[in-house]
Amino acid sequence: MKLNHFPDHPLFSFVDWSLRGIGQVVFQNNPLSGLVILAALVWNSWIYAVICILGVISSTLTAVILRADRGMLRDGLYGFNGALVGLALVAFTSEDFRAGSIPSIAMVVYIICAAAFTTMALASIGALLAPHKVAPLTMPFVLVGWLFLFAVLKFDAIDAGPMAKPISPEQFSDTVPYVLSTWYEGIGTSIGQIFFQDNWISGYLILIAIGLNSRICAAMGLLGAIVGTLVAALYGGPEGAVRDGLFGYNSALTAMALGGVFLVFTWRSLLYAIFGAVIASWLWASVAIFLTPIGMPVLTSTFVLVTWLMLLGQGAFKALVPVPPAESTTPEDNRARYLGHQG
Amino acid sequence: MKLNHFPDHPLFSFVDWSLRGIGQVVFQNNPLSGLVILAALVWNSWIYAVICILGVISSTLTAVILRADRGMLRDGLYGFNGALVGLALVAFTSEDFRAGSIPSIAMVVYIICAAAFTTMALASIGALLAPHKVAPLTMPFVLVGWLFLFAVLKFDAIDAGPMAKPISPEQFSDTVPYVLSTWYEGIGTSIGQIFFQDNWISGYLILIAIGLNSRICAAMGLLGAIVGTLVAALYGGPEGAVRDGLFGYNSALTAMALGGVFLVFTWRSLLYAIFGAVIASWLWASVAIFLTPIGMPVLTSTFVLVTWLMLLGQGAFKALVPVPPAESTTPEDNRARYLGHQG
Amino acid sequence: MKLNHFPDHPLFSFVDWSLRGIGQVVFQNNPLSGLVILAALVWNSWIYAVICILGVISSTLTAVILRADRGMLRDGLYGFNGALVGLALVAFTSEDFRAGSIPSIAMVVYIICAAAFTTMALASIGALLAPHKVAPLTMPFVLVGWLFLFAVLKFDAIDAGPMAKPISPEQFSDTVPYVLSTWYEGIGTSIGQIFFQDNWISGYLILIAIGLNSRICAAMGLLGAIVGTLVAALYGGPEGAVRDGLFGYNSALTAMALGGVFLVFTWRSLLYAIFGAVIASWLWASVAIFLTPIGMPVLTSTFVLVTWLMLLGQGAFKALVPVPPAESTTPEDNRARYLGHQG
Repeated sequence: MKLNHFPDHPLFSFVDWSLRGIGQVVFQNNPLSGLVILAALVWNSWIYAVICILGVISSTLTAVILRADRGMLRDGLYGFNGALVGLALVAFTSEDFRAGSIPSIAMVVYIICAAAFTTMALASIGALLAPHKVAPLTMPFVLVGWLFLFAVLKFDAIDAGPMAKPISPEQFSDTVPYVLSTWYEGIGTSIGQIFFQDNWISGYLILIAIGLNSRICAAMGLLGAIVGTLVAALYGGPEGAVRDGLFGYNSALTAMALGGVFLVFTWRSLLYAIFGAVIASWLWASVAIFLTPIGMPVLTSTFVLVTWLMLLGQGAFKALVPVPPAESTTPEDNRARYLGHQG
Repeated sequence: MKLNHFPDHPLFSFVDWSLRGIGQVVFQNNPLSGLVILAALVWNSWIYAVICILGVISSTLTAVILRADRGMLRDGLYGFNGALVGLALVAFTSEDFRAGSIPSIAMVVYIICAAAFTTMALASIGALLAPHKVAPLTMPFVLVGWLFLFAVLKFDAIDAGPMAKPISPEQFSDTVPYVLSTWYEGIGTSIGQIFFQDNWISGYLILIAIGLNSRICAAMGLLGAIVGTLVAALYGGPEGAVRDGLFGYNSALTAMALGGVFLVFTWRSLLYAIFGAVIASWLWASVAIFLTPIGMPVLTSTFVLVTWLMLLGQGAFKALVPVPPAESTTPEDNRARYLGHQG
Repeated sequence: MKLNHFPDHPLFSFVDWSLRGIGQVVFQNNPLSGLVILAALVWNSWIYAVICILGVISSTLTAVILRADRGMLRDGLYGFNGALVGLALVAFTSEDFRAGSIPSIAMVVYIICAAAFTTMALASIGALLAPHKVAPLTMPFVLVGWLFLFAVLKFDAIDAGPMAKPISPEQFSDTVPYVLSTWYEGIGTSIGQIFFQDNWISGYLILIAIGLNSRICAAMGLLGAIVGTLVAALYGGPEGAVRDGLFGYNSALTAMALGGVFLVFTWRSLLYAIFGAVIASWLWASVAIFLTPIGMPVLTSTFVLVTWLMLLGQGAFKALVPVPPAESTTPEDNRARYLGHQG
């Protein structure tokens, strides 16, 4: 008689894929990174951790049911948009943004369907971008997140909450001075905001989760958060928005994407990534102001927009060395393969 | 002496193409379906029937003048967006949405040009989507409709009317209870709203027109309307909007598109289509709320968005069997061809 | 001893590319056209001329640093979006739109980065459109312009100015009668508005600059401006907006693009271009009204939208003879090559 070996059990595979899915929010195809990120969420609020798991399971399971490509499933690529859409729907319908509220049954059904829909959106956006060798990034989440957030404001069965969280620089006071904690909290919270965690310690924990898989990614994420925060300060962004990490989270993601993940890490791509982080910080303010009249949060739209505009035309610029999404692993590996290929 | 055989006369071909164009709004490449739909419009208001004919002629004739592909012309594919844009421009500039008003000369010229422009938009969106084997659906109408409706609000020579029709769930009272007629009227009007007919009997007549060509399509259209209405009721949509069929028309179109027209009709695609109908109902509310500040109606944007997002990535999901638009006829034929191919 | 021949010096090449970049705003790959346009700007305000040079240098230099294709650089294609974005950012942040204000240091840095970003946007939009043989037109400018204008409204370090310039037909009085000067000033300013010059003499000077390289282009630009202005008058557009050239500048660009530059100049494409100019005039009003709640100007979005919708599907219409962007020179040459090919 032969025992079922645990690691071969489908359930264990599924847990592995889901943890990688959580890691993929910050480009880390690593279940341990996913686990540490969950711990960072629990540090801030166990509700968010549970919702994150719900979202990643719904979207990954949908991909299994629709018989999606195994390779992409195994890399967690069908999970990260579902995780984010769950977090966003709870964050912006909770009375207290920071801690989150336990959603109603109607809301849970709604979140499950939204997360499942991101799986279809990912396949569709992926198909559109395939000829250009550019990844969908978090666009499925942004699109589905916006669409499902609008409806929430209307349906009786879902309590929309007071949208207590300011979502645009205009909604912060201009007169508060910058202090030391503005800086270290703002930079940490920039990383936290990627997962809607308004908690700077959670942010630094997430940075550690990234570093477990790739030090270059962690360094670029930190650098992006610093650049985004610095640009906001130089251009007079309000202290509250800087402290809340709002100017930094898109910059952090942009810096990681351009600095090693989708471009081989070189001095040139480092400068390119810093330029992208500067633009992403300005454009967070832009998109926030654009969305204010309809009360919608920016989500990670600025990161997607800037990164797409800086990657889609990569073939035109000989100064850059693209890494096709299907071949991208970690910045360290991407660079080693490129150098090996060169030498 | 030889008589001109009527069926060969170019004028008769043109009438045939135009009637098919009206049928193509609901995916029916059948002149009889087009004729019964016209009758359903006359039942509600002869003005709408005339405008529908004006729109379909303008866009079809433009395609003839520009020497478009004969096959597409013959299938009525250059007509349906023109018909819809004509109906929309009259519906949203009439004092009485239900009956419509006779447009001014300036407005007639405007409608003719808008309908002609949908022909160019169809070719363009078709070119963009061609590599993905997904149809433009009613996107040319939605895009041109929005663009031309905005301008209407400004030009002196065109009377914009009071936009008396509520276009968003927010504009209906939340306190009216659901009664029996909410259901049978709401479901019928869902089909009617596809053609801007605020009349539940016209809706059921259109369903018959669909059934003349494809029973699966008629069944899926009805199922979609029921699902859309039911979801709205469960999630507390206002009674007035449910009765007006506003939650159901995008769901009806989505269910038809996914349940047999562009995916082979199977148990799997049936479930996929129901899921799509649920999403389309929620997202109607979303887009309506998004558009409220600028006073613009949703049109069929939700149907297009949901259907595109569920079809563009079809290649990634082995559980679905796509039907390329160029090969799609009726759900019955699409299924028969697939089964024949399998057997 | 051998002298450095002036024309071979890299600096001279760069000046040549930059002047062509200014000419490319109106499709003229000719340094002399660029120079005369600069003179037209100086006629109105030396500030705009300097900003135009700053923008074109920033975006062209970015392309050089990123090692972009030499052929495109030489044709000035990396310059025109940078020039426009510089002009737009100054125009809409100046207290006096007509004369412009000298920007602050923070604003200069901002303009340089925005112009540099148009280079990446051009490569990206170009990559997306390449399979369809359609040019990015001024879309990089429109997109980057909008994104950077929104943020301007917020940052403390940049003075947003009062946006004193009306940007939508709604903001003009409806009661002012049309007089003779409405016509000749409105038509001239339509050409001037392409470069944000609220000056009809500058407009006619720019028309001369175009005519130095292509008489057909100059004629089509003038015709487009006349058509746009006429349509506005027929449909009751406010006198102030007509006089300011707001109804005409998108029509002028559309008529040039469709009448000879991207379609071989024939009687058919002439009629097609006039139809496009009519649509562009109506849709300027549409987009202006759409953008009013967020206080954003239309820029040349209507031109891009109409021209794309009329060109992307060009393969479907046998009545049109497309000129692929990479082969397009002047309407005269495009037509001569086609006729030579035919004969």
